[in-house]
Amino acid sequence: MKAKIFVTLKSGVLDPQGQAVAHALCRLGFDEVKDARIGKYIELELGDQGASEERLRAMCEKLLANTVIEQYRVETVE
Amino acid sequence: MKAKIFVTLKSGVLDPQGQAVAHALCRLGFDEVKDARIGKYIELELGDQGASEERLRAMCEKLLANTVIEQYRVETVE
Repeated sequence: MKAKIFVTLKSGVLDPQGQAVAHALCRLGFDEVKDARIGKYIELELGDQGASEERLRAMCEKLLANTVIEQYRVETVE
Repeated sequence: MKAKIFVTLKSGVLDPQGQAVAHALCRLGFDEVKDARIGKYIELELGDQGASEERLRAMCEKLLANTVIEQYRVETVE
C-alpha cells in the first residue's frame, strides 16, 4: 500500500520560491502564469497492512508538515 | 484556471531526503513506513485562457523539472 501526502503553504503565507518561479516562467514567455505556489509531494511505501488515515495524519502533524504555516492532504492508494 | 504539477525523482535515482524521512518516521514509531520519496508539488495560477497541456509540459521541460533525474505529471483544474 502507498500513501500520497501533499504539503502546501497555508494561503496568506508568503511564498518567495513560488514568486521566483512565476517570474521566471513569465520571462521565458509563459505569460499566462499569474502566480505559483510550491509545496512538497511525499510518497510513502507502507507495509501490507497499510496505515489508517489517523496514523498518516499523525505523521504529518509530528514530522512532515509544519502546521503553523503549512496544511496537508493525505491520499491512500491500494 | 489552475494547473497542478507533480515533479518526482525517476525510479532508480537515490533519494537521501526520502530515506531520512522514512528513518525518522520509523524512529517515531511509525514502523509501517518502508520507504519515502519526496517530490515537488507546484500549483500554477493561470489567466482565464488557461494553458494547453503542451505549454505546461514545455514549462516543466524548460524550468520546473530536471528531466535527467526527474519525471513530471501535469493536471489542469477548471
